[in-house]
Amino acid sequence: MEFSSKLLENAVNAMSQLPGVGKRTALRLVLHLLRQPQEQTLQLSKALSTMRSDIQFCKSCNNISDLNICEICSNPNRDESIICVVEDVRDVMAIENTSSFKGLYHVLGGKISPMDGIGPSELCIDPLVEKVKQGHVKELIFALSSTMEGDTTNFYIYKQIQDYNIFTSTIARGISVGDEIEYADEITLGRSIVNRIPFEISLKA
Amino acid sequence: MEFSSKLLENAVNAMSQLPGVGKRTALRLVLHLLRQPQEQTLQLSKALSTMRSDIQFCKSCNNISDLNICEICSNPNRDESIICVVEDVRDVMAIENTSSFKGLYHVLGGKISPMDGIGPSELCIDPLVEKVKQGHVKELIFALSSTMEGDTTNFYIYKQIQDYNIFTSTIARGISVGDEIEYADEITLGRSIVNRIPFEISLKA
Repeated sequence: MEFSSKLLENAVNAMSQLPGVGKRTALRLVLHLLRQPQEQTLQLSKALSTMRSDIQFCKSCNNISDLNICEICSNPNRDESIICVVEDVRDVMAIENTSSFKGLYHVLGGKISPMDGIGPSELCIDPLVEKVKQGHVKELIFALSSTMEGDTTNFYIYKQIQDYNIFTSTIARGISVGDEIEYADEITLGRSIVNRIPFEISLKA
Repeated sequence: MEFSSKLLENAVNAMSQLPGVGKRTALRLVLHLLRQPQEQTLQLSKALSTMRSDIQFCKSCNNISDLNICEICSNPNRDESIICVVEDVRDVMAIENTSSFKGLYHVLGGKISPMDGIGPSELCIDPLVEKVKQGHVKELIFALSSTMEGDTTNFYIYKQIQDYNIFTSTIARGISVGDEIEYADEITLGRSIVNRIPFEISLKA
């Protein structure tokens, strides 16, 4: 691509570094900004740079926060003895949306993925193990993606904490609500039969 | 969406103002930036704001440029007597890529589209008419999108300049190179028959 302006080229190049944004899309976005009032671009530019330089991570759960300790961790109404282990802030938001969990979270910041060069040391695992060691935690819920990487991460953490005598669980895997059995994949369907639950319990959910 | 951080929320909101970027995509992009080195975000932020505040439009053709007069307009090897009328900088880039046009461009900045509130006065049409009036232009090539809005814009400009006795043309419409006749739409196919060209001429292209 030959640009008539260096400024335009720089903006397009920077924009196209974002995942899923190619040169053409980047050009479309940048030209859109040029047609909008200047304030919109300056606002976007400022929001991004302030976010990147000033953002903090909760000292307790590693979630993104504007405070030293996030609102969830500092909420006295939440149960400190149950910790839900998740990959990132999106999972916290998704679970919070369900209003069905009243414990605390621990955000790992990803999952173990040797293919992407992410080992245990890149993740926030040690502080979690430390929390378990202190003895206040009764249950750890693994709520990671149901993938090879997610399972590996679950297992790695499990190995670290298995001597501390706490209850560990993973979120239920099975047929999604609204799904037809006919179209469910074999592994999910097979597991959902092996891990069947008493009908009376399913009535309460 | 409930955010755990105001900074994150602001960045996501600003990002989701971009066309085709919803809240979820914006969050994904912003979290990606958070995982990358801080410089990347600052560079993006700076590239966007500098671009928006410092960018110039060529005084002659209205194309985006870092100079008062863009490189194409100031190139002595280009034919000043032929002007190709286009919508925006992307069209200039696309035509320049073909290396088959050696005249100058005139960038309208859009097309007449009453549905979007864009009338002739929102576009850079008057300076084009002014150029034609001065008498140096021999041919005007309309290279606008083959849509109702493009055709309206062509016709509007044509009406403004028809008394100045210059040759006006539009780029050829017909079957794309590589297309199968069977799958061409009726209107395109019909027009391509009506506007057929001598076979000897097609051999030269």
